Amino acid sequence: MSPDDNGLFIIKPISSNHVDAARARQETLTKPAGSLGRLEDIACQIAGIQHSDTPSITNKWVVIAAADHGVVNEGVSAFPQAVTAQMVANFLNGGAAVSALARQANAQVKIVNAGVANPIPGDTSKLVDAKFADGTANFAQGPAMPHKQAGEILRKGIAFAQQLSKEGADLIAVGEMGIGNTTAASAITSVMLNESPKTVTGHGTGIDEVTRLKKAYVVSKAINLNQPDARKPVDVLAKVGGYEIGFLAGVILGAAKTQTLVILDGFISTSAALIAAAIAPTAKRYMLASHKSVEPGHILTLEHLGLKPAVDLDMRLGEASGAVLSIPIVESAVRLHNEMATFEEAQVSGRDGASTEGSPETIDSEPATQ
Amino acid sequence: MSPDDNGLFIIKPISSNHVDAARARQETLTKPAGSLGRLEDIACQIAGIQHSDTPSITNKWVVIAAADHGVVNEGVSAFPQAVTAQMVANFLNGGAAVSALARQANAQVKIVNAGVANPIPGDTSKLVDAKFADGTANFAQGPAMPHKQAGEILRKGIAFAQQLSKEGADLIAVGEMGIGNTTAASAITSVMLNESPKTVTGHGTGIDEVTRLKKAYVVSKAINLNQPDARKPVDVLAKVGGYEIGFLAGVILGAAKTQTLVILDGFISTSAALIAAAIAPTAKRYMLASHKSVEPGHILTLEHLGLKPAVDLDMRLGEASGAVLSIPIVESAVRLHNEMATFEEAQVSGRDGASTEGSPETIDSEPATQ
Repeated sequence: MSPDDNGLFIIKPISSNHVDAARARQETLTKPAGSLGRLEDIACQIAGIQHSDTPSITNKWVVIAAADHGVVNEGVSAFPQAVTAQMVANFLNGGAAVSALARQANAQVKIVNAGVANPIPGDTSKLVDAKFADGTANFAQGPAMPHKQAGEILRKGIAFAQQLSKEGADLIAVGEMGIGNTTAASAITSVMLNESPKTVTGHGTGIDEVTRLKKAYVVSKAINLNQPDARKPVDVLAKVGGYEIGFLAGVILGAAKTQTLVILDGFISTSAALIAAAIAPTAKRYMLASHKSVEPGHILTLEHLGLKPAVDLDMRLGEASGAVLSIPIVESAVRLHNEMATFEEAQVSGRDGASTEGSPETIDSEPATQ
Repeated sequence: MSPDDNGLFIIKPISSNHVDAARARQETLTKPAGSLGRLEDIACQIAGIQHSDTPSITNKWVVIAAADHGVVNEGVSAFPQAVTAQMVANFLNGGAAVSALARQANAQVKIVNAGVANPIPGDTSKLVDAKFADGTANFAQGPAMPHKQAGEILRKGIAFAQQLSKEGADLIAVGEMGIGNTTAASAITSVMLNESPKTVTGHGTGIDEVTRLKKAYVVSKAINLNQPDARKPVDVLAKVGGYEIGFLAGVILGAAKTQTLVILDGFISTSAALIAAAIAPTAKRYMLASHKSVEPGHILTLEHLGLKPAVDLDMRLGEASGAVLSIPIVESAVRLHNEMATFEEAQVSGRDGASTEGSPETIDSEPATQ
């Protein structure tokens, strides 16, 4: 990182005072203590992120970064590279899965060209340009991108998230599109978690077991060749990453810098989160996991980040689909926190018949026994 | 069941033609086949329930049945019986968890008094009356209710769901309130699944391990004393059930009779589903699981019913909270099905470079390898 990055990668911790105050309020609400499970944790986390007693989610954004991957030349994907550009057009036209999900969640969508190889068909006036190259080089034969570009794509992502925050975003859901990018995510995850390529490499968009083993072999070869250093996340990104992954790692850091909640999607977005968390560990508390992907490296990554998925629907699509599907759950958590009556307000008896009259201290707030 | 029940408990299967047609459409949409996981299954199931190529969820209802339980005299709950009536008032005033969740999901709520022991404080003009008694008798000392009443509460639930369907409901989320009702649900579940009381009995609203073992003992004693017959679900309901559980079993049957999707909540609502499914096994395909409760009997029951939860947030509140939280997921599944572009419409290349020109048959619709 260059000298002008001074302070760029510094993320403040979330407010523990506001987390504690939110936790105390949760214990006064008309429900057995802890019975809303992780919905309570989510509300308390957002209170900490927003430094607020009444956290709110009103301005919701989805950021989908797209880029291509030279490693597709190794035959690691079931779909041709042309699909990346075609799907970007599908996003712009509102016909993709995430388009429908964003309409359901009442969220706005930004599509970012972080390095798509083919021309995007149709009207691209709403496409955000962050392109350095026509996708990465084939990292089975050398580094994916120049080291300098890895730093630059991160900075572009940070600046983009800062701009969204300035425009009022209080939630950013991140996702991606890029044929071949589960191979890059597998390589990053293998390096950052120190797990074998075979363990973290899955079936992607639906390759068979023979192709999966070839993909694991390609990941293994790329790591041996490029020798990415897990202690240097920008080095890992440059050697075996991807432009959309770097951009999203930047968006995650930028969201955290501006005290904005970021919802992760599946395997590729969590590989970006690994890069972000290695650069600035405090960024982790600004992250929320959404769904549990069928990709085997995904749950390992979430565990590493200290995150638990909310939704388990055997999804493996990417393009922020799981993240956007989870937005109403996050909104519900915040709404419960703000709108539920307390035992005292509703004149409901507490545990073991404790009176609701007098001070809130009479309410038993013992943690759940499970 | 009396002679006038002729046909009352007959449920038609969902339309397999519409399920198949929906499955075929899913394979043409711009995503790797199967990559939306169980969201695809949910859309296909609703197409089958509604006999429609364009399933829709617009008129959403939450039904919460409340009743009391004589078995609380055995000291099986952390909260006093007065809480049932107090929480009904909280529901009516919009201060409960489900009230906030229903506002988030834009669903209407019906609160049903199926047998609350204490007077409901405040304005009860919107409370639905289906009360036979001030709660069940203590089933540790005899049957919970007369056999005839078990049939009658089922019929009331069926008629209620039929009325909601007539008014246009296309989704009914079911939930309950009743201090002591996890004990009844444990007894029903133990009998219907032929599992030991100790296996299916959990911590309810937050009792300690000693009290949990007492609760399992009480369930065991009640089953030995009353000898409910698993082949006769109305007998089980009468001997170790509860009025709100019977009412919800009826709502589930009534929803299925009128080809309406029903979303189950946690452990108590799935015990009602066990009764409904034993009366009419075809009702199962009208059911959708919502969340995975921390109650140990819940996941066993879902497996028995062939259902998988969508959300896993360590919740254990009841009152339809998990069911209502899942409504946006169901709406998303339907919206994806109806609104996504096909490969052909979006001119996106198929798997392994298959052309998108010409007939949809050129799109590879091979099932996912995972």
